[in-house]
Amino acid sequence: MKTMEWKDNKLILIDQTKLPDELAYFTCNTYRDVIVAIKTMVVRGAPAIGVAAAFAMALAYLRDENLEKVANEIKSSRPTAINLFWAVDRVLASNNPVEEALTMYEEDIETNLAIGRYGSEIILDGDVILTHCNAGALACVDYGTALGVVRSAFHQGKDINVVCDETRPLGQGARLSVWEMQKENIPVKLIPDVASGYLMQQGKIDKVIIGADRVANDGIANKIGSLMVALAAKRFHVPFYVAAPLSTFDFDISIYSTEIEERGPEEVTHYGGSRICPKGTEVINPAFDIVPSDLIAGIISEKGIINPEKFKEFFQKLI
Amino acid sequence: MKTMEWKDNKLILIDQTKLPDELAYFTCNTYRDVIVAIKTMVVRGAPAIGVAAAFAMALAYLRDENLEKVANEIKSSRPTAINLFWAVDRVLASNNPVEEALTMYEEDIETNLAIGRYGSEIILDGDVILTHCNAGALACVDYGTALGVVRSAFHQGKDINVVCDETRPLGQGARLSVWEMQKENIPVKLIPDVASGYLMQQGKIDKVIIGADRVANDGIANKIGSLMVALAAKRFHVPFYVAAPLSTFDFDISIYSTEIEERGPEEVTHYGGSRICPKGTEVINPAFDIVPSDLIAGIISEKGIINPEKFKEFFQKLI
Repeated sequence: MKTMEWKDNKLILIDQTKLPDELAYFTCNTYRDVIVAIKTMVVRGAPAIGVAAAFAMALAYLRDENLEKVANEIKSSRPTAINLFWAVDRVLASNNPVEEALTMYEEDIETNLAIGRYGSEIILDGDVILTHCNAGALACVDYGTALGVVRSAFHQGKDINVVCDETRPLGQGARLSVWEMQKENIPVKLIPDVASGYLMQQGKIDKVIIGADRVANDGIANKIGSLMVALAAKRFHVPFYVAAPLSTFDFDISIYSTEIEERGPEEVTHYGGSRICPKGTEVINPAFDIVPSDLIAGIISEKGIINPEKFKEFFQKLI
Repeated sequence: MKTMEWKDNKLILIDQTKLPDELAYFTCNTYRDVIVAIKTMVVRGAPAIGVAAAFAMALAYLRDENLEKVANEIKSSRPTAINLFWAVDRVLASNNPVEEALTMYEEDIETNLAIGRYGSEIILDGDVILTHCNAGALACVDYGTALGVVRSAFHQGKDINVVCDETRPLGQGARLSVWEMQKENIPVKLIPDVASGYLMQQGKIDKVIIGADRVANDGIANKIGSLMVALAAKRFHVPFYVAAPLSTFDFDISIYSTEIEERGPEEVTHYGGSRICPKGTEVINPAFDIVPSDLIAGIISEKGIINPEKFKEFFQKLI
């Protein structure tokens, strides 16, 4: 299952707002269509947003737009995911935007397969794995980061069970992660977001694996709620892993300087088309939070699993 | 606003499943009607369940039912709230079940006013108070435990702001607590359950106050999600208070021996009448979790605020 395809100089995206009930597609003819898709979460997930943004640059190039200007416009579509910035800058620096976007598309798949291989080493037969939000194929071009690790372990024949939390307000866990697991017959159960602490308290979760929108020396930024899952994991000695490509890493900043996107109130006041609170209720709706390094057992990258307190050593070795 | 009324030998309940859009009533002519109301959460909240159960015994008495048998039936309607057991046993031991239930009804209001008075002492001008689920008037006969503290501070003229989390799966925070606060013009904002950790990380919450379904020496049982809120509060040094009447206390058990009710899957798979995950998704839906004592700053009772690590001293003084 590919989240996006480049065809006849158009970008075709799975419309993730329609899942799981409808597998519909959203066609982008211009870079502006891609911005709409990113803002409305037709496409979401840091790696997928990155590659979609690369194709947005390619679309702008094909129409002779001012690429510097377009780059800034795309970057402001969602402020938290670092991949978006990385992808746009990479295409901007290239000679052939279309070729570069296609290369990044292929690389994303390779990267996720590598993350899956490394990550699967920590998964034991019989593990129950909790994940938050969707860091699956739908968050990438294909395969997934956190769910890529799950897929890889499952395809190795390990007996695993996945627990997805719902991930309010937009339900990426309930709508997307559960759907991805069911499609491949990986055993999966859904819980409300409030229940993951209890399951860990009961000793019913062996590992947590989530994705990341940004990784820095002192922590990660990821979907709102990641922090509370990490705190429960720490308390109950459940190893908490983050699966993320190196394109998500940014060592020049403290993770606390990340701009946390605030989204509209109707995501919280409404669900499944119905209002779930009194009319006119005021809302706070941050889209991400910060998980500090001390709560993270390891970061699963395409170059191996990194101890978050030994970042520097790891990257010095890579150079 | 009273959650229930005894009128012409009938128990009339606000139907809380219909709030906030409709203020409807559910009339109980028999004890069996009360059991249905408790099971389907027409009436919910530990103190309210207790008093409703007392009236169920009164209804059974008026119809010459076998009270011992009825008592057991009522006790099995929801297993976690201790008040239910306490209330039924108290009526069973009395000479006049109707009078006893009416006494308990009045006592519940007095108790909550006392909890409010003690609790308001810890609320400072300018405080932002986070609450989980609904420990408000709707969880009691009137006034509320956690929200009783909020009401009391507000009526003293303190400038306070309330943050209610949604409390999936049944949305008691979004539907009931927000509604109660709005009715009295107490400033209130709604957040998704996943966001309370982030707000505490940002220093935007001054205190957490929740209710309890059961209090013991080593912790409390309360609505699922309380544990995760408490863990975030501990991490970010936000005092975490529990407001609960002494009828909720049980010192003969470890809190970990509490039977945690598992509820049906459709509460998780559906919301506002719509399915929010793929068809046939399997679910885990525990209704409560345990907050260990070390995460609790104090228990606000009708006899004062109790340090959870000094329970014994407190109760020796009371005797």
